[in-house]
Amino acid sequence: MSANNQADLDRQYAVGIDFGTLSGRAVVVRVSDGEELGSAVHTYAHGVIERALPGTGVSLGPSWALQSPDDWRDVLRHAVPGALAAAGVDAADVIGVATDFTACTVLPTLTDGTPLCELDEFADRPHSWPKLWKHHAAQPHADRINEIAGRRREAWLGRYGGKISSEWEFAKGLQVLQEDPLVYARTDRWIEAADWIVWELTGTESRNVCTAGYKGIRTEDGYPSPAYLGELDAGFVTFTDKLATELLPLGALAGGLTERAAKWTGLPVGTAVAAGNVDAHVTAAAADATRPGQMVAIMGTSTCHVMSSDQLAEVPGMCGVVQGGIVEGLWGYEAGQSAVGDIFGWFVDTCVPAAYEAEAQRRGLSVHSYLELLAADQPVGAHGLVALDWHNGNRSILVDHDLSAVVVGQTLGTRPEDTYRALIESTAFGARRIVEAFEKAGVPVEEFIVAGGLLKNRLLMQIYADVLRLPISTVTSDQGPALGSAIHAAVAAGAYPDVTTASAAMGRRITSAYVPDSARADVYDRLYAEYHELHDHFAGEAHGGTGVLHRLRELRNEVIG
Amino acid sequence: MSANNQADLDRQYAVGIDFGTLSGRAVVVRVSDGEELGSAVHTYAHGVIERALPGTGVSLGPSWALQSPDDWRDVLRHAVPGALAAAGVDAADVIGVATDFTACTVLPTLTDGTPLCELDEFADRPHSWPKLWKHHAAQPHADRINEIAGRRREAWLGRYGGKISSEWEFAKGLQVLQEDPLVYARTDRWIEAADWIVWELTGTESRNVCTAGYKGIRTEDGYPSPAYLGELDAGFVTFTDKLATELLPLGALAGGLTERAAKWTGLPVGTAVAAGNVDAHVTAAAADATRPGQMVAIMGTSTCHVMSSDQLAEVPGMCGVVQGGIVEGLWGYEAGQSAVGDIFGWFVDTCVPAAYEAEAQRRGLSVHSYLELLAADQPVGAHGLVALDWHNGNRSILVDHDLSAVVVGQTLGTRPEDTYRALIESTAFGARRIVEAFEKAGVPVEEFIVAGGLLKNRLLMQIYADVLRLPISTVTSDQGPALGSAIHAAVAAGAYPDVTTASAAMGRRITSAYVPDSARADVYDRLYAEYHELHDHFAGEAHGGTGVLHRLRELRNEVIG
Repeated sequence: MSANNQADLDRQYAVGIDFGTLSGRAVVVRVSDGEELGSAVHTYAHGVIERALPGTGVSLGPSWALQSPDDWRDVLRHAVPGALAAAGVDAADVIGVATDFTACTVLPTLTDGTPLCELDEFADRPHSWPKLWKHHAAQPHADRINEIAGRRREAWLGRYGGKISSEWEFAKGLQVLQEDPLVYARTDRWIEAADWIVWELTGTESRNVCTAGYKGIRTEDGYPSPAYLGELDAGFVTFTDKLATELLPLGALAGGLTERAAKWTGLPVGTAVAAGNVDAHVTAAAADATRPGQMVAIMGTSTCHVMSSDQLAEVPGMCGVVQGGIVEGLWGYEAGQSAVGDIFGWFVDTCVPAAYEAEAQRRGLSVHSYLELLAADQPVGAHGLVALDWHNGNRSILVDHDLSAVVVGQTLGTRPEDTYRALIESTAFGARRIVEAFEKAGVPVEEFIVAGGLLKNRLLMQIYADVLRLPISTVTSDQGPALGSAIHAAVAAGAYPDVTTASAAMGRRITSAYVPDSARADVYDRLYAEYHELHDHFAGEAHGGTGVLHRLRELRNEVIG
Repeated sequence: MSANNQADLDRQYAVGIDFGTLSGRAVVVRVSDGEELGSAVHTYAHGVIERALPGTGVSLGPSWALQSPDDWRDVLRHAVPGALAAAGVDAADVIGVATDFTACTVLPTLTDGTPLCELDEFADRPHSWPKLWKHHAAQPHADRINEIAGRRREAWLGRYGGKISSEWEFAKGLQVLQEDPLVYARTDRWIEAADWIVWELTGTESRNVCTAGYKGIRTEDGYPSPAYLGELDAGFVTFTDKLATELLPLGALAGGLTERAAKWTGLPVGTAVAAGNVDAHVTAAAADATRPGQMVAIMGTSTCHVMSSDQLAEVPGMCGVVQGGIVEGLWGYEAGQSAVGDIFGWFVDTCVPAAYEAEAQRRGLSVHSYLELLAADQPVGAHGLVALDWHNGNRSILVDHDLSAVVVGQTLGTRPEDTYRALIESTAFGARRIVEAFEKAGVPVEEFIVAGGLLKNRLLMQIYADVLRLPISTVTSDQGPALGSAIHAAVAAGAYPDVTTASAAMGRRITSAYVPDSARADVYDRLYAEYHELHDHFAGEAHGGTGVLHRLRELRNEVIG
């Protein structure tokens, strides 16, 4: 099926499928140049399951977030044929298919891949269902994981910025064991949805290096030791037996499409299927930004930063560093900001007066756009404000979700657009703090590439360029992850020798779409110095600062508890 | 005219006239028991003059705020007869009249009291007009006053919390000299409106101890020395010649009503007129709270605290301590919070979403009342927030108008009512810091008495009781200053021997209207500890804290300058 000949590639297509939080999207891409010929979206029937289990009405606790596996199959059944139809492409010309998924979204299955929640006996047990990435009910379990790892000085802890998230495989797995031992006992396989969907396509279980490395605490030394796991809970000693030791590199061929999956998708039986992958990480391929020093920021409700490097370093507060975690042969780094677009959304929903909403409506603008318009012409520093962007805690570089926001400098003259702009700037300062942490650790950042929904806020993009003093490249495709998956599909099908080569041919970005203005950047240096000082002051006792944010959180938990 | 016989007092009346920022109010009060029999309000035709001079169209600079003397005369012409009519009282039974005024509201006049702005040749010169208390354009002049006083270690500086305000007589006078020497040269008298209005009533110039002491840097050692004034500006050496050395105690007889003033007011010629006074200070009399340890807080857009004591102490950040400044024979202390109601007004105007406005309207509530309702049931500390109430700087205890607000602890779950409650609490913490400063200086506060517009916010009042751990008394009259003036009128007329005796008979308050809840107070102690720490951290380098707020203000001034 391999073909490096341009004429062949022009007649060959790859399908990328991106599984998001509320829907899945398929795109049909030309293998020669990455042209996106058609796409289709399928919205999950059950969306995010937060209140009660479908059908049974069994209610869920606070901070729970589940999904339904059949919603994901529906994406294969509807979005793939839809994208093929939209592209006007003959399915016979599709050489490969690849997927990317939210992570860590993880589920318990039987040895044949059947989700436990699809067994009648388990359908009414919440722990049998897939836990979505933003299921946050395993915090006590994550706390225990971190406490014991810290005490034992587990070497792998530094790879994850010193803290394992409650969102990840081990915390969610430990929660199942301790809250529903019966489901845990029946869990033959504990598998990322990213790998499970590949299993559904190929009929064979496989695991990818990316989710295992970032979400499954898998390093070149293997998984955490049984001795450590036994300290967490005697019943957890054999937890890693439910995972896998053999891992596929990204872009590897996982298998061929089964008859059942071929029927769902309309693609030929045996079509090459790539190893599973993660939405943020495939975006680097879509942007042709897989080389060392190219930091890709996927900016939406939160921001995920991914970057490859030939250097292994422990960068404070990163989410993980994984060998081959983005492309084979390089160390893949991931960092994150817990809330970005979510902050602006919160502000617009709860902090903007009726007069602004009315005026925005009169002008036919969203409130966001109206605030952007009002804030755009201010000289830098004119609002007199600086804020800490910790409305949902701080992932990188502090790894502390008990932090909260600080807004400094409001007066009786402060207008909504002033605070809105200050909040945008605060997230840019947060990004700069991350970039500087990488550089200080010897992992230089040379280009800042933005993908995701916040691209459309031009004021925000310019502020990032000015604050970072870096030209900002933009990913033009509004289906970046699906395109990135299609690139991996082309590699799995043998059309290109590796992801970096395929990305150069099929991925694209606009370089220097936003260029820093040095006068504005000079003023931002002064504001960033204030952010830096406030950041360190409020970072908490462990970082040499004041503990006020932790004490406020403790008091809150105590009085509402 | 004197009469201490109860039957006489029952048939005698006093008129109090309160000159506010936007209007003046007259009230007719029975001398025997302070019963308010009728009142009338007259709104100033020109209100606050901030953009351009009336008639001429000459425009004003930023931070200017002027008033028109004839607007004040109109209060005599309309509100006094209106109040008499409303009371159904025979003018012949009125034994005295007294006034109170905003301060420092100050104007230049000829030797006969004619305001310079009423001379044709000066009407188009902004500096010939009365400068309202909130005229803030003399800040550079105040800065110079403070810098040189600090360098020379002037003894009087400590009496004013270490800083003279740009709002006061000397700063405003120095501004006239340096910006319009011609007007300054023609200024025979530089006089508080509080004293000018008494001149209008009696035909004789007099000055009261209160405004001279608090706003005119007049201590028992006299005014600042010519040597000091000469350092400010060679032309300023003789400034105090435009003031007066003879001062009347509060409640003293300033003179009898002139024929012209009798015609305006409808009162008999020769009716006793009391010495001028200040709105906040007369309220202590209205509340019958003129004894040591009784702190009266007049809470509106800002808060003014007045308290008498037999102790002379230098309390950090107070506005002034003046012998006889509230009642004769005691030291009168004044402290202040630069913004209180203004903060809540700013929040409601600029930080509350349309959905809240709509729901408030549906329920027939003001947005304030709706937020109060939503915030009332929270356990203390549940919102996870603490704020610094410095939206208009901090008067007491830091005396720094370049400070600005800080809000700590917001998250994506923070609702408008949470922040609203935190802002109310921040002003209560600010009040506690003031009370503690008095106590630390050896001037104990035993009772906290509230007057003013914020009395109607019951949530706020309870929060103050809980935060201060003090029972709160309330002034029930909604025209407290006018009643306080009427009490002074009765004293000037000889109906009572002194203001304290008259207040006991004519003033009133509800004691312990709000009582602290010890469980809530315990939690507030924890939140106050956070406020205290943040307060000291952000207070600026001079107080051992960070200079971030000053640097943000400097940057703002620089980029918009």
